[in-house]
Amino acid sequence: MHSFSEILDQLNAFGKEQSFPKAPAELYEPCDYILSLGGKRLRPALALMAAELVGGDPGLALHPAWAVELFHNFSLIHDDIMDAAPLRRGQPTVHMRWDLTTGILSGDVMLIYAYQHLAQTPKQEVLPQLLEVFNRVAIGVCEGQQLDINFEKRAEVSLEEYLYMIELKTAVLLGGALEMGALAAGSTAQDAALLYDFGRLAGIAFQIQDDLLDTYGDPGTFGKQVGGDILQNKKTFLVLKTLEIASETDASALRQLLNPATQQEPESKIAAVRSLFDKYQVPALVQTEKARFEQKAFEALAAVSAPDSRKEVLRSMVAELLHRQK
Amino acid sequence: MHSFSEILDQLNAFGKEQSFPKAPAELYEPCDYILSLGGKRLRPALALMAAELVGGDPGLALHPAWAVELFHNFSLIHDDIMDAAPLRRGQPTVHMRWDLTTGILSGDVMLIYAYQHLAQTPKQEVLPQLLEVFNRVAIGVCEGQQLDINFEKRAEVSLEEYLYMIELKTAVLLGGALEMGALAAGSTAQDAALLYDFGRLAGIAFQIQDDLLDTYGDPGTFGKQVGGDILQNKKTFLVLKTLEIASETDASALRQLLNPATQQEPESKIAAVRSLFDKYQVPALVQTEKARFEQKAFEALAAVSAPDSRKEVLRSMVAELLHRQK
Repeated sequence: MHSFSEILDQLNAFGKEQSFPKAPAELYEPCDYILSLGGKRLRPALALMAAELVGGDPGLALHPAWAVELFHNFSLIHDDIMDAAPLRRGQPTVHMRWDLTTGILSGDVMLIYAYQHLAQTPKQEVLPQLLEVFNRVAIGVCEGQQLDINFEKRAEVSLEEYLYMIELKTAVLLGGALEMGALAAGSTAQDAALLYDFGRLAGIAFQIQDDLLDTYGDPGTFGKQVGGDILQNKKTFLVLKTLEIASETDASALRQLLNPATQQEPESKIAAVRSLFDKYQVPALVQTEKARFEQKAFEALAAVSAPDSRKEVLRSMVAELLHRQK
Repeated sequence: MHSFSEILDQLNAFGKEQSFPKAPAELYEPCDYILSLGGKRLRPALALMAAELVGGDPGLALHPAWAVELFHNFSLIHDDIMDAAPLRRGQPTVHMRWDLTTGILSGDVMLIYAYQHLAQTPKQEVLPQLLEVFNRVAIGVCEGQQLDINFEKRAEVSLEEYLYMIELKTAVLLGGALEMGALAAGSTAQDAALLYDFGRLAGIAFQIQDDLLDTYGDPGTFGKQVGGDILQNKKTFLVLKTLEIASETDASALRQLLNPATQQEPESKIAAVRSLFDKYQVPALVQTEKARFEQKAFEALAAVSAPDSRKEVLRSMVAELLHRQK
C-alpha cells in the first residue's frame, strides 16, 4: 500500500504531464492558472486510494482522478463568478484577473477536458459506469449550487434542506471520486457504491465541521478569520440549529443580528451570535450531528469487501481530516 | 428512407419526452426555455440522417443527436452572456430574462445533460468513439468562440484565420453531428470521418453564405436587417477579402467606415461599404470561395460507401440550405 503522501506524489507527477494546449492562450492560461493555485488535490487522491483499496493499481484511476480534479476547478471558476468572489486561495479569481468572458469560457473548456480525461480510463469496459457516476455527481453539484443560491435569498431554510444542499454541493463529489477510482480499478459495483456512501457521508461531516470551526476554531491555528460566516450572515448549520430550538425571542434576536441591515461592530456581533449558540449548547449538538454522519461513513467503509489493512490509509486520512482544528 | 420532415417529426417527438427534472426550478426552467425558443433542430436532424445514410436505424442516433442539440443550446446560453446579447430568436436571452448566475449555471448543467444523453447511446460499444468525437468537437467550439473574441479586439485578421475560426465555432459541430449519428448506427470509422468532413466543409460554406446574405440578401425575404454586419463593424469574409485585395487607399477607407468612432448615417454607411465590396467584385469572389467548400463537401459525401439513393435526403437538404436566399 502507498502512503497518502506517495499517492499525492504520483498524482502531482501525473498532473504535471497533463498540460492544456498552448493556443488559444486566452482560453487555456486561466485553466493552468487555477490549477496552479495549489489546492489540496484531495478529490483525485481519494480516487487513487479507492483504486488501491479495492485491490487495483492506483495508476488505473489516474485519468478519472484528474477528471474529478478538473471538474472541481471548473466549478471553482464558475462559482467564483456567481459569488462575485475577488480572491481564491489568496490570489485573484479568474474573472478578476482576466474578465467575465474568460471565466465562463475557460471554465466550460475545463469541464470538457474533464470528460476527455474520463474517456482515457485504461479499462475502457468500465467507461459507461464511470460516465454514469460522473454525470450523476456533476448534476448534483450544479443542483447544490442552485440550492445554495436559493437559500441565500430565502428567509427560512430547514436543517434538512441545508443538509441536502451541502450533500449535493460538496459531498457527492467526494463520494464520486472514491466510486470512480474503485470502478476504474475493477471494483464490484457494490463496493464502489459503499465507497461512494463513505465519501458522501464523510463529506457532510466535513462540512458540518467547517461550519463549527469557522465560529469556534482556534484563532491561532485557523486559517481564516474566526467568525467570518457570522459577519457574512451565512445560514450555517449552527444558525439553523439554533433557530430550530431557540425560544421565539432568541430566534428573533438571532435573525436581527444576522440581518445585513443591522448596524453593528464586527467583534460584538460575533460575540452576541456566539452567546446565543452557547446558550442552547449548539456546538455540542452540532458535534453530535457530525459524529452521526462520521459513524455512518465508517460503517459504509467497514462494509467494503476488502481486508482492513487495505482500508487503513484512507481511513486514517479521513479520520485526521475530520478531527483537524483548522 | 425517411424524408427530412419525417426525421424532424421523429426528433421532436423524442425531444418532448426528454424533460429536465422539475427541481430546482431555478436551474431547469431556463433549460426548457432555451429549447422552447424553437431552433431549426438542424444538428440533431443531421445525426439521424447520417444514421440512416449508413444503413442503420435513425432511432439508434436519437440520444447522441439530442446530446448535440443540448450542447448547441448550452453554447447559445453562454455565448449570449459573452456577447451581451439581449435577444435570441426575438425573445429575451436567458441571462436577461433571469440573471447572469442563472445563465452560467443552467448552461453548465445543460452541458452535463448532453453527456448524459451521449452515454445513453443504444450501442454501448461505440460509446468511446462517440465521446472522442464529442469532446474533440466541443473543445473546438470553445476554441472557436475564443478566437472570435480575440479577432474582435484585433486590428488585423487574415482570411485564413477567419476561415479557421468559423470552422471551429460553427462547422465542426455540424460535422460532429453527422459523424456521431453514423457511429451510433454502426458505421465504419472511415465513412463516419467522411461524413464529418462533409458537415465541416458544408458548414464553412454556410457561414460564408451567411456573410454574403447579411449584406446582399433580398430585404423582402431576408429575416434580419440587411447590412446588420456592416452596422456592427463585423470583420466578415467580405470585409477581409476586400482588405486583402483593395488598394491601400480603399482599404484605409473601409477601415475608417468600420471604425466605431466614425460618425455616419446607417444607410449611407451600408451603401459606402457595399460600393467598396462591389468595386473589387468581392461578392463574386466570395461566391467562388463558397462554391469551393461546397464542392469539397459533396466530394466527401460522394466518397461515403453507401448507395446514392441513401444519400439523397441529406444531399438535397444541404444543397437547398446552401442556396437559400434568406
